[in-house]
Amino acid sequence: MAEFSSNDIDQMHHLYRINLINSCSGYKSANLIGTKDNFGTSNVAVFSSITHLGSNPALLGFFLRPTTVVRNTYDNIRSTGTYTINHIYEDILEEAHHTSAKYDSQISEFDVTSLEEEYKDDFFAPFVKGSPIQMAMSYVEEYPIKVNNTILLIGKIEKLYVPDGLLDKDGFINLSKGKVATINGLDGYAVPELKKRLEYQRPKPEFAIPND
Amino acid sequence: MAEFSSNDIDQMHHLYRINLINSCSGYKSANLIGTKDNFGTSNVAVFSSITHLGSNPALLGFFLRPTTVVRNTYDNIRSTGTYTINHIYEDILEEAHHTSAKYDSQISEFDVTSLEEEYKDDFFAPFVKGSPIQMAMSYVEEYPIKVNNTILLIGKIEKLYVPDGLLDKDGFINLSKGKVATINGLDGYAVPELKKRLEYQRPKPEFAIPND
Repeated sequence: MAEFSSNDIDQMHHLYRINLINSCSGYKSANLIGTKDNFGTSNVAVFSSITHLGSNPALLGFFLRPTTVVRNTYDNIRSTGTYTINHIYEDILEEAHHTSAKYDSQISEFDVTSLEEEYKDDFFAPFVKGSPIQMAMSYVEEYPIKVNNTILLIGKIEKLYVPDGLLDKDGFINLSKGKVATINGLDGYAVPELKKRLEYQRPKPEFAIPND
Repeated sequence: MAEFSSNDIDQMHHLYRINLINSCSGYKSANLIGTKDNFGTSNVAVFSSITHLGSNPALLGFFLRPTTVVRNTYDNIRSTGTYTINHIYEDILEEAHHTSAKYDSQISEFDVTSLEEEYKDDFFAPFVKGSPIQMAMSYVEEYPIKVNNTILLIGKIEKLYVPDGLLDKDGFINLSKGKVATINGLDGYAVPELKKRLEYQRPKPEFAIPND
């Protein structure tokens, strides 16, 4: 068993640390965020921090570091109020991962990869063509995170596109039927098979709260 | 292709909505958060929103709704400043999922499930015995999220325990070697197999920024 204290983590080689800490939280969502600036240059970038915040209203959040390559994404969202979230799936793993490379803001990742932009329903930001789950998002609010100068950006789902074959009768989206990927760490990809759905849990009768 | 507008989402049956919106963001981390109150009652609860915030310092965040069952977790973290994060793995899927049932705060989920609490290195909060990745966490800060009254709670990794067999030479933790689970929606579980690690990406030469 390897044990790392807070002090060990502070002092380890930075490449070892980013691999270790990026993979210790568990599996992450694997998404491409599509944006476009007001001059017409589109942008698409891989994100692994998109997280469910609530269903009613339907809100998703993600974290970004304004000082890195993802700055284009942030700037475009703030100046246009719109973005798209598109799931990474088996066929586009390499091309999606390549969007993490640092390109000049005037170069669209759609031009340097085989990823194709798609526009629908007059939405301003580009979707990633072929992505099994696509969402049109509008900016809601953001929170500067003091402890490490990241930003939590929160958006609302304006439109959600899901192939019929992935939808169960109760609204559950079966991600494995869409070959949706998940990320382990910075660079590990898996395409899970759904094992099982478990039932809604109630307390065991002998421990239940009276009148619950 | 099914299409859901913001208005459709607002008006759909609430059970359909929570299934749909909880599964549309992609795969989620599958963790058990362990806490203990100042009177000695322990608590363990499943969370699927634990997200990497940064490696230096090593920070993880998660979202909670203070008005639901997870209130015990929040109260215990605030009153003691400590908690643990433990990965859910194949052998404990059902028991881990059962911690989502609503028990009275004086009942420990360790007493009503086969999950066992473990104490090490004098850390106050309980770990989940057998969990392949365990982390001792300290409370750092929190942000009330105005738009839906959730809370983002941020903690620092004080100690990280990982079996040697899961650790690659560069610090990467191979989650699939630990049979670590991921969550699809509210109740779908998968135990992914790592497909591949991809290399660090640099711009293609013909599009690279000069002097980059």
